[in-house]
Amino acid sequence: MPTPTTRSTANSTPSLAPILRPRSVAFLGASNRPGTIGSELLRNLLRAEFKGPIYPVHPKERAVLGVRAYPDVAAIGEPVDLAILAVPAAQVVPAARACAAAGVGGLVVITAGFGETGAEGAARQRELVAICATAGMRLVGPNCLGVVNTDPKVRLDATFAPTFPGPGSVAMASQSGALGVAMLDAADALGIGISEFVSIGNKADVAADDLLEWWAADARTRVVLLYLESFGDPLRFAQIARELSRSKPIVAVKSGRSERGGLAASSHTGSLATGDLAVGALVEQCGLLRVDTVEELFDMAAFLAHQPVPRGRRVAILTNSGGPGILATDACEALGLDVPELSTALATTLAGELPAAASVHNPVDMIASATAAQYEACARALLASDEVDALLAIFVPPIVTDPTDVARAIARAARGHGKPIVACFMGLRGVAEATDALEAAHIPSYAFPEAAVRVLARAADHGAWLARPEGHHVVPQGCDVEAAVAVVRAAIGAGGDATDANGRVELEGEALAALLDALGVPRAASRQACGAGEAAEQARAIGFPVVLKLVAEGVSHKSDLGGVKVDLRNESEVFAAWDALAEAAERHGVRMVGAQVQAMVKGGVETIVGVSRDPSGLPLLMFGLGGVHVELMRDVAFRIAPLRDVDAAALVRAPRGFPLLDGYRGAAKVDLAAIEDVLLRVSALAAACPELLELDLNPLIARPDGAVVVDVRASAQAYLQP
Amino acid sequence: MPTPTTRSTANSTPSLAPILRPRSVAFLGASNRPGTIGSELLRNLLRAEFKGPIYPVHPKERAVLGVRAYPDVAAIGEPVDLAILAVPAAQVVPAARACAAAGVGGLVVITAGFGETGAEGAARQRELVAICATAGMRLVGPNCLGVVNTDPKVRLDATFAPTFPGPGSVAMASQSGALGVAMLDAADALGIGISEFVSIGNKADVAADDLLEWWAADARTRVVLLYLESFGDPLRFAQIARELSRSKPIVAVKSGRSERGGLAASSHTGSLATGDLAVGALVEQCGLLRVDTVEELFDMAAFLAHQPVPRGRRVAILTNSGGPGILATDACEALGLDVPELSTALATTLAGELPAAASVHNPVDMIASATAAQYEACARALLASDEVDALLAIFVPPIVTDPTDVARAIARAARGHGKPIVACFMGLRGVAEATDALEAAHIPSYAFPEAAVRVLARAADHGAWLARPEGHHVVPQGCDVEAAVAVVRAAIGAGGDATDANGRVELEGEALAALLDALGVPRAASRQACGAGEAAEQARAIGFPVVLKLVAEGVSHKSDLGGVKVDLRNESEVFAAWDALAEAAERHGVRMVGAQVQAMVKGGVETIVGVSRDPSGLPLLMFGLGGVHVELMRDVAFRIAPLRDVDAAALVRAPRGFPLLDGYRGAAKVDLAAIEDVLLRVSALAAACPELLELDLNPLIARPDGAVVVDVRASAQAYLQP
Repeated sequence: MPTPTTRSTANSTPSLAPILRPRSVAFLGASNRPGTIGSELLRNLLRAEFKGPIYPVHPKERAVLGVRAYPDVAAIGEPVDLAILAVPAAQVVPAARACAAAGVGGLVVITAGFGETGAEGAARQRELVAICATAGMRLVGPNCLGVVNTDPKVRLDATFAPTFPGPGSVAMASQSGALGVAMLDAADALGIGISEFVSIGNKADVAADDLLEWWAADARTRVVLLYLESFGDPLRFAQIARELSRSKPIVAVKSGRSERGGLAASSHTGSLATGDLAVGALVEQCGLLRVDTVEELFDMAAFLAHQPVPRGRRVAILTNSGGPGILATDACEALGLDVPELSTALATTLAGELPAAASVHNPVDMIASATAAQYEACARALLASDEVDALLAIFVPPIVTDPTDVARAIARAARGHGKPIVACFMGLRGVAEATDALEAAHIPSYAFPEAAVRVLARAADHGAWLARPEGHHVVPQGCDVEAAVAVVRAAIGAGGDATDANGRVELEGEALAALLDALGVPRAASRQACGAGEAAEQARAIGFPVVLKLVAEGVSHKSDLGGVKVDLRNESEVFAAWDALAEAAERHGVRMVGAQVQAMVKGGVETIVGVSRDPSGLPLLMFGLGGVHVELMRDVAFRIAPLRDVDAAALVRAPRGFPLLDGYRGAAKVDLAAIEDVLLRVSALAAACPELLELDLNPLIARPDGAVVVDVRASAQAYLQP
Repeated sequence: MPTPTTRSTANSTPSLAPILRPRSVAFLGASNRPGTIGSELLRNLLRAEFKGPIYPVHPKERAVLGVRAYPDVAAIGEPVDLAILAVPAAQVVPAARACAAAGVGGLVVITAGFGETGAEGAARQRELVAICATAGMRLVGPNCLGVVNTDPKVRLDATFAPTFPGPGSVAMASQSGALGVAMLDAADALGIGISEFVSIGNKADVAADDLLEWWAADARTRVVLLYLESFGDPLRFAQIARELSRSKPIVAVKSGRSERGGLAASSHTGSLATGDLAVGALVEQCGLLRVDTVEELFDMAAFLAHQPVPRGRRVAILTNSGGPGILATDACEALGLDVPELSTALATTLAGELPAAASVHNPVDMIASATAAQYEACARALLASDEVDALLAIFVPPIVTDPTDVARAIARAARGHGKPIVACFMGLRGVAEATDALEAAHIPSYAFPEAAVRVLARAADHGAWLARPEGHHVVPQGCDVEAAVAVVRAAIGAGGDATDANGRVELEGEALAALLDALGVPRAASRQACGAGEAAEQARAIGFPVVLKLVAEGVSHKSDLGGVKVDLRNESEVFAAWDALAEAAERHGVRMVGAQVQAMVKGGVETIVGVSRDPSGLPLLMFGLGGVHVELMRDVAFRIAPLRDVDAAALVRAPRGFPLLDGYRGAAKVDLAAIEDVLLRVSALAAACPELLELDLNPLIARPDGAVVVDVRASAQAYLQP
């Protein structure tokens, strides 16, 4: 069963410095045979001119690629910070033991054949991790491409990839070796400087969360790029990412959407929490910049490495050709950027620089005759105005104007405004030199306007995220999380018959009531009755009108089979309703156990609050409008627990149908704070109780005077330490 | 006001052959001065080695670029099929007259300064068009880049673009000269062969619809690529595109989404018909393959030029690396392609070819050791099975295997299955040669898996469109379109006070009733009353229960101000309701004119049927679920009128809330045929009556026994011939 994991790392964790800033490197598995990892990786280490000694380890050879070799780590006789292991899988564990004995600082295990290959490999991986933990060595891999640090004081290329990219401010991590090779290639080809690169492979120890923590403290790193298939410890990742995103943007390709496995969903929330909603929620909350492809990863990196994040969504488009200007305007609209009409004053300024046939509206079409000087003057005027937050300069090479002159002119105009500027130099000919000139001025350039706009839009989204208040973790008063967790655990313990083949237990009526009461979530007064007389009695105790709900084995959608009778105003209506339920149960061939007598909640808006878990165990909180809205329109939104107060407020406002809660067409506004309060209470449970698989408060009736749960379902399962 | 236009072209239109397959070319504006269009275009004509004579026309020079020149067209003294004009704007009209007099077959006008520049230019353009029409010359441009035909028997490069691409089966048209240059460059760089290229510029005469018609009959053309900012004659375009798409795929970048101008919307339909819904509807109905960027245009072209459209949505992924396989699987899921689990038999076959560590599930991960022979054997097995409809082969260059060997192996396996195959060779190094090998085998290759999957998904969508029945144009019985159009025109004529500043008239109650009756659209029995007594009398005549609706000046959302009283069961309730309406009108400061007495329609599902117009005048038909669904959820869908029967059926089923019509949770199914019938009636009016701006049947109550209109609004405006 997938469950969240929290490693006991914290402050006692050894540093990654021996791995990423080693002063000496041993390479176990070095080889003189061309075309092997053992030879390619050593060649890379040498080509990069590592700043410390490299000690190849080989059982027989005296030298590998001309470098003196040692028969084992112990024989080196000098301190070794980093040991790289590319020996056969069966030799990795003994080699790691030898490294531990020799006082090696950290390991990078290239070798495959561990957790990714079945039970034997998994056992080997556990043994490897245990050796490292005992010795205080951090471990990258196994089954990885290696690590890179371009720092001129380090110059480590411990990979077997063909490319060693130039130094810069972009740190990269990849869970896939193949994508890692593609990322190193792309960075090099696009001239994007790298600070460090880590191929995390099986992430038996070092995972993305550790790297975020490391790069947070790395002065050379200003932007982080990630290719991930899964989060190691999603809650820890979320927490660190949310912190780091405030100072260094994190751009991520998160793959593995289609890996949804695990248990089939039995709740509404579970059935709606499909695809990569967890990732979407995490992105939304943690300020990640999520992109879909590796290409977009680098489009984004080229921007973030040097350009400021825009302070607003207003884009000026400057072009010498109408078509691309229109494409850019379309793209802006599609991605929620404004292309504002310019003020008369600004338009007049621009008109003073341009021929009469030019258009000084936005997009500013300077027409094909535009000169470099006109680009410079117009770019300056637009950037200096307070009417725009960012500039997109488009250039289509006409016959006359030299692209490089235009590039230099734009670069001059870009200085000193504190506003982002991106370029799109179209056409594949004669533009390379111009692109180089832009690159030298740190102005990112894209081949098509849409790519440039996409980058600006994501940057503006990130700017908006940065401008939001950070919020606080809040547990509302009277929310006894421990007591609620105890209710869930007791239900699992007492599961018995209610436990299904997967070990999952559906919580019964009394446990559900106890759960809500422990959390302090208001619910409609409700009692169970085993007979019609008892039901009438309890109805009188609760107060009329009441609702009578069928309690029968294996029935979830009670209303589908006529199992709910509402607005019963007196005892005789309760008796009649009981008979109707009994008859409905018989008609559908289900065994009636009794009925629930519940206070009738009148008016208000039906909403749904739910908890579900993504395959990695991440607790997902759902909110939406109830009934048809949730079932057909899927008008729901997700966040990851634990929610901060700002998250709860945002989640309530996220569904398209939110106006129905907020005084739509003269209706009374419901108590939004009450819904937020319920969300925070449920969030506290979801975060603290990995046993809770699914929870539906459906409906939670929201009214002007509060919110009250009318029906609830929950399932739980014993928590297995992963 | 934007209105649909229907040119009186039809069969009498002169052919485009003199322009696109000329036997001789005159070039007015030829120049010896380097860096001018007059010199670049002539250089292109010569470089392409045009198969007929080229006659430069220059007032003074005896030769241009070494070719004998003539002082004017008349002086050539030989038949001229095509005249290219790049003379100054003021000289274009006289030059066109001279061409007409000299019996030239057709014109391409490069010169700018016409309709795109204001009143004077527009007048000049009208004059130019008139000259051409009279002389029977078709006209490309003005304000364009020129035309290309790569046919070895023609070899025409009448553009000033730097690239003359190789011959092939892809025809291209661009409304933007700049994008045209980019398209020619991209085709050349990607090795995509072109049949013909036309830069349509201001499309004063020849527009995309004409080119589709021309390419339909062109044996060399198998795929059409379009970059469009607007449709010249959208209805004609739609009709021709729908026809052509059956035999030759049309891939389009349609820009200009943000150009929505025209009238502010006053109806629901109008306010929902924003952005590029018209284009979306047109794409859906006409089988266009719409892409977002020029890059995707060529991704698609590379596929369609040689690969068959898949017969289903099942994709096999064959890879030597896990990460890209997962990325591809994700992309498939996101785009609605299946990556099916393979049968045990097929998995066993694959396992027989591969090492134990390989995964023979789909994606098939052959791991890094995969050889060319393994690629070939597995690709063959997958393509031969009846479990997949298409194959994506991913290759990440490891150290050992040669990419070109793998490419050749895949090419061999691809033959003779009739199933599409696409490749993704990742990493920028050492793959160019491999890509060439794939290109030679007509297997499109993409740099990243997502691009490859996107192409397959669009191709599968197109395959599904091709498999759908074509349907028929149907006008239901008893639908008197002429009478309905007459109602609209009469309302415009009698507009008077009801006409707003834009000349728009809101139709009044009796006209609306007459309109629905002429179309044969069922409506709830309804009468107007001027006093309470009259209302009670009419209620008795209609039959209780009734609804009373306020009729007041300038009130659209009656229910917002308490202007609708429902379920009135007797005369005294009608009197009370009348007083309530009067009071509500007074409270809101509106003048009560009277009330509408309407039969109460009980039960059923509220739907909305509407007509709106996009900025080009294209009539849009909308259908959705009513009330909150339409207002908050925007759960509506659009098609372009006139609908075929299959369109009406698809439109009814398009909203997410469709299950509410189809027996949701045990409710009775409504009469879908009755809704389709209403849609076809309204469609007939929308297509025949350009004066009709907006129409809302809101709600149209759908019930098991039919559909009936309960409220209707419409506005119209005098039709101005464009």
